[in-house]
Amino acid sequence: MKVTDEIIDRLKAAIHSSRILTDDADLYSFAFDASFGMHKPEIVCQPMSSKEVAAIVQIANQYLVPICPRGRGTSLSGGPLPVKGGIVLDFSLWDTKLEIDEENLVATVSPGVITSTINDAAQQFGLMYPPDPSSAHVSTIGGNLAENAGGPRGLKYGVTKDYVLGLEVVTAAGKIVRTGGKTVKNVTGYDLTKLIVGSEGTLAIITEATLRLIPRPKASMTAMVLFDEIIDSGRAISKVLGSGIMPSKMEMMDQSSIIAVEEYASLGLPIDVEAILLIELDGHPQALMEEMEQVKTVCMNVGARSVRVAQNKEEEMELWKARKLVSPAIVKIKPTKISEDATIPRSQIPEMFRRMKIIKEKYNIHLVVFGHAGDGNLHPNIITDQRDQEEMRRVEMAVEEIFKAAIELGGTLSGEHGIGTMKAPFMEMELGVDGLEMMKSIKEAWDPKNILNPGKIFPVQGERFELRNDY
Amino acid sequence: MKVTDEIIDRLKAAIHSSRILTDDADLYSFAFDASFGMHKPEIVCQPMSSKEVAAIVQIANQYLVPICPRGRGTSLSGGPLPVKGGIVLDFSLWDTKLEIDEENLVATVSPGVITSTINDAAQQFGLMYPPDPSSAHVSTIGGNLAENAGGPRGLKYGVTKDYVLGLEVVTAAGKIVRTGGKTVKNVTGYDLTKLIVGSEGTLAIITEATLRLIPRPKASMTAMVLFDEIIDSGRAISKVLGSGIMPSKMEMMDQSSIIAVEEYASLGLPIDVEAILLIELDGHPQALMEEMEQVKTVCMNVGARSVRVAQNKEEEMELWKARKLVSPAIVKIKPTKISEDATIPRSQIPEMFRRMKIIKEKYNIHLVVFGHAGDGNLHPNIITDQRDQEEMRRVEMAVEEIFKAAIELGGTLSGEHGIGTMKAPFMEMELGVDGLEMMKSIKEAWDPKNILNPGKIFPVQGERFELRNDY
Repeated sequence: MKVTDEIIDRLKAAIHSSRILTDDADLYSFAFDASFGMHKPEIVCQPMSSKEVAAIVQIANQYLVPICPRGRGTSLSGGPLPVKGGIVLDFSLWDTKLEIDEENLVATVSPGVITSTINDAAQQFGLMYPPDPSSAHVSTIGGNLAENAGGPRGLKYGVTKDYVLGLEVVTAAGKIVRTGGKTVKNVTGYDLTKLIVGSEGTLAIITEATLRLIPRPKASMTAMVLFDEIIDSGRAISKVLGSGIMPSKMEMMDQSSIIAVEEYASLGLPIDVEAILLIELDGHPQALMEEMEQVKTVCMNVGARSVRVAQNKEEEMELWKARKLVSPAIVKIKPTKISEDATIPRSQIPEMFRRMKIIKEKYNIHLVVFGHAGDGNLHPNIITDQRDQEEMRRVEMAVEEIFKAAIELGGTLSGEHGIGTMKAPFMEMELGVDGLEMMKSIKEAWDPKNILNPGKIFPVQGERFELRNDY
Repeated sequence: MKVTDEIIDRLKAAIHSSRILTDDADLYSFAFDASFGMHKPEIVCQPMSSKEVAAIVQIANQYLVPICPRGRGTSLSGGPLPVKGGIVLDFSLWDTKLEIDEENLVATVSPGVITSTINDAAQQFGLMYPPDPSSAHVSTIGGNLAENAGGPRGLKYGVTKDYVLGLEVVTAAGKIVRTGGKTVKNVTGYDLTKLIVGSEGTLAIITEATLRLIPRPKASMTAMVLFDEIIDSGRAISKVLGSGIMPSKMEMMDQSSIIAVEEYASLGLPIDVEAILLIELDGHPQALMEEMEQVKTVCMNVGARSVRVAQNKEEEMELWKARKLVSPAIVKIKPTKISEDATIPRSQIPEMFRRMKIIKEKYNIHLVVFGHAGDGNLHPNIITDQRDQEEMRRVEMAVEEIFKAAIELGGTLSGEHGIGTMKAPFMEMELGVDGLEMMKSIKEAWDPKNILNPGKIFPVQGERFELRNDY
């Protein structure tokens, strides 16, 4: 139902009115995320305690109002957008808790804490919080938890979920519940922690997390490898991993990304190569030297044009600059960026590239591919202009074919961005009717009134993929 | 309901009669596991394909017969015992699939494969399957998946769940469903894979798993550290981990374990120390030398009596022998062993030892403590004789106090053995009413007729902890 004056009055009793936004201008600033689409909330609440969240959810539950948790809006899948209206719960003010328990190697955080500050705090104790989504300096841990964010280090260290030991959550009924704890091993009943992480705010609202930290590696080393043929870069990835080396990062840029970056920043990258691989190793300094030699040999053996190893921290940062500039560079080409994260078993990278080339030509679209190639988590980005209706139809068809290709090759719709609204129509294609039903039955059991972030993950009967805005 | 002749006829149509056991002598051999208790199945089926499992479950579903999956019966929590009667699904014959996909670093296995053979197969490609429960040479991967088995390497490498990318399962309705896939990153909908792993056969029956492999570390090195005071061993663990070193194993034995092993095997262990820590490092040989020096210094600084580093593989095996002999040694003392796995945040190890000492004296029981101290996963074992009714009552009370202590110290009932039947009465103490309700609602949604391994995990209203057999 709609947010009425009665509901607003109830909310004002639950949370200080300075943290309730109803002004149209304010509401507009919560209508977007980093994906495609615009959905204005009816009201924004900015809770700063679990009790406030519980009180707000109880009201939403009573009046059947949708409630959508939100961090800093960097989602690439529409996660925080109130597609069915209702309340947006803005957690960005609630960044007050960031405790490092050095002895137990854990951090306890409130949902509004910026992701990168967790790693910064851990660093002071010689520790590391490994997950590193590209938005880590802006995104909140709450959003990372909801979407199970990944990042380049996922290759060696895994994703957000792999570092969550326990949660405090508020259920759809407005109850405060703790899952897991501070121990790495815990098999007491079902793993609600890992079920809730990545459930995109549809099962419960995360109000606190206990995160696992690990000792920081002593050193790191980066190489930039150039490939005349993109297929050889895929082979290099397999061969490096098969040689017993687990790099901390293995990022790739295709020729379109390289050209875009060069046009944007003139770093002196060779625009005639089909692919660049950036390989970072971390660990003991002595081991790194040896392993980097191995990496060099392996890459040259599969046909790399050259391998350049950074000799110091400055050179290392210089090499990474190319990869970091891809996103800013490509939005200069055309204003609309459709960023996907179809993920495939890494052995299928060469075949996936072959198929994407065909799709690009078939629909005459501007397709740029880069991403976390080491774990098969590519980022095909389509650069377009949403005002061009005809082109948008071609983009829709191309995206659909990219998803189909990923699934045919044994991959998945989403490696780290989440399903949100845009990928919902493809869920059945990957999961089958029964798999989707198993997920739905959990949602229905936990949130029978469908108030928690409705309209996400699950496709509406007969829903088709469409790139449009609700302006 | 009971397994009638009609049901047996139906089962014989679903699976070859040579793999259906109804003989009383046969049924008895499936009435035990490595925990406490005896529950004879009404019938045993030995499926060797997903289709057979699906057909059997469909029959169980139609006639409301309990169905309990079983590997090789090494469970320490009663996991495979048919406490409500019905069908035991014995997977031990179905060890036919063990495929290593070298390029994607994954293994695909059928449920009856022996755990250690997966690691052996991976080793031929320079890879490793890290989870190493003590029973790895006997237990099946299906059982490990159902219980989310751990092991010493859990400290650095995590547990079974951390290595599962995808599953094929049979649902309570007898449908074959695939979850996850072959990619390390996958956020397409809810994480059914990690929900099913560790659910003790109560949510779905696992018929195939896709497991993640990692490059094998190049070398390992082991030290045995002696402590006059057990509290110092706890401090040593914290200090080593705080110094930026992540050992692959950190196992401890208390004085009772040391004495038991010495009496059993005369290895020349000092019986006057309060604790032994066995610390294994793995990684690059050069790094190991350096890190082991650091470990030595840290341990001596917190008051270790001595640190002995194995100089070669033989010495390494010699040092580990002490730890490996604890279980066989203690069952020589008295015939009944109650093996627990209460797990605590590692900073609480000294306090947990203090409390267990009090409990031991209060109830006058033979308590032996050893286990995976590095991750707080201790194994308090009570050595007793189940024929001594009076002692068994004291043991019950002692176990209850150990669980309470673990939970009070921020720990969990079970680190790696599972809840099964014995720990069910304590679930609410750890999870609270609401947490337990959230778990139950998943069970009810997925298995409304409660045919999948009934009587496990969830306590019956008012159930009390009792050590008794249904002889």
